[in-house]
Amino acid sequence: MQFTDEIAAMGVTERGFTLDRPDEPVPGVLWTPEGVTGPRPLVLIGHGGSQEKRSPNVVALARRLVRHQGYAALAIDAPYHGDRTPADERDLSWEERRRRLGGRLFGRGRGATTGLVLGDWHAALDAALDAARALPEVGAGPVGYWGLSMGCAFGVPLVAGEPRIGAAVLGLFGWSDQMRLAGFDDLARSLTVPLLFLVQWQDEVVRPEDACTLFGLFGSERKTMHANPGVHVAVPLFERAAAEAHFAEHLGPVEPAASAA
Amino acid sequence: MQFTDEIAAMGVTERGFTLDRPDEPVPGVLWTPEGVTGPRPLVLIGHGGSQEKRSPNVVALARRLVRHQGYAALAIDAPYHGDRTPADERDLSWEERRRRLGGRLFGRGRGATTGLVLGDWHAALDAALDAARALPEVGAGPVGYWGLSMGCAFGVPLVAGEPRIGAAVLGLFGWSDQMRLAGFDDLARSLTVPLLFLVQWQDEVVRPEDACTLFGLFGSERKTMHANPGVHVAVPLFERAAAEAHFAEHLGPVEPAASAA
Repeated sequence: MQFTDEIAAMGVTERGFTLDRPDEPVPGVLWTPEGVTGPRPLVLIGHGGSQEKRSPNVVALARRLVRHQGYAALAIDAPYHGDRTPADERDLSWEERRRRLGGRLFGRGRGATTGLVLGDWHAALDAALDAARALPEVGAGPVGYWGLSMGCAFGVPLVAGEPRIGAAVLGLFGWSDQMRLAGFDDLARSLTVPLLFLVQWQDEVVRPEDACTLFGLFGSERKTMHANPGVHVAVPLFERAAAEAHFAEHLGPVEPAASAA
Repeated sequence: MQFTDEIAAMGVTERGFTLDRPDEPVPGVLWTPEGVTGPRPLVLIGHGGSQEKRSPNVVALARRLVRHQGYAALAIDAPYHGDRTPADERDLSWEERRRRLGGRLFGRGRGATTGLVLGDWHAALDAALDAARALPEVGAGPVGYWGLSMGCAFGVPLVAGEPRIGAAVLGLFGWSDQMRLAGFDDLARSLTVPLLFLVQWQDEVVRPEDACTLFGLFGSERKTMHANPGVHVAVPLFERAAAEAHFAEHLGPVEPAASAA
């Protein structure tokens, strides 16, 4: 984890970093409270399709967790996203980008590609998690995961298989026959951490009934679904407060001794 | 509204009352902060089938609203419930009572009976609301409604038709063909206040998919569904905090001048 830049504002230090990875370097961002040391909960943020590590909703959630809870937060660019966008695609429209992304990430008959993308993302996030936890201002505290839409599709296998993750906020994704064939049902059943699951009732990308089916599959004893009116990207801002409250309840507070520099 | 008894504990005054009504007197309970005057939000609590005005969850919600928010709360016994239970049914088992209640309140081909029960309940609650708002310690502040299961079935027509009610918590009830025939769909569509709707994912009384259908019908621009695992009566305690937060957001705080005696 090589830090590439650093800014601090309103009590939050934001550092860009690069991870050396086999195929290509993976860029990310780490948010921590300014001038602290000692262990604290860390929330991994998985951006949605067509978004990136500094998309406004990612930055807003990260800053909120740092400022309100004293947590650390971390995001990386997924394959084909952000700084990893292929050079010849940077000028394409959002719709065209999304069409190509969808084919790459979840296209029919592309199970192998999906597996590669997911494996790349998972391995990079795992490496970032290791590196962040080695820092004195993050340490080996509890870990949470937040991801909607593609961040949920990628996040279900991550959260189900990563024992260090102790709480999750997922949503804007649903059950499908294609996902069932890929073993997604069993992954959902094996996900058992406290879960907040967000659904949009007029979602034009994910049918609410499919999202409800996925919610029913999760193995978590403590799981709550919050559903609101509106389209895919119109999650109400108050659900950001609900996400913060979910992490605060299940990851716990920063130990007092750790909050001073 | 004749007060029949009064107890005060931990800052909450609880007064039993009786309303003179055409058919039979209707008993109820009013909760207010101890020793206050002036207007404050009032939450009407509609108990579930087989419950009554002092069922533990009703009392707990009322005391919470009084203690945390300085609100007033009010509950009455529905027809055939609590002190209105027919004398020859008081010793029956809960299952037998519930079987008889179901037939009376929602039985097939008993639309007329259901209408009478609902009309009676609505008129009595309306009278209680008038009487409570005439008291200096309640006044003409904002009004909310909370009701699950039967309290939701009765509450949808109430909230849709009572312009003084400005926010509601409903749930544990669902769409059905029988309800559609009774005009329930249109009532749900005409309900437009900010709404928190609670669903239990293993509900043995109401199918979750029917509850979801009902949620979709409500006309409220601001509506949120919270779904949790478990059977009909197993709503998690944290949803009581969510109900309080919903009322606090949409009914507002007690005006400072009103909170002192």
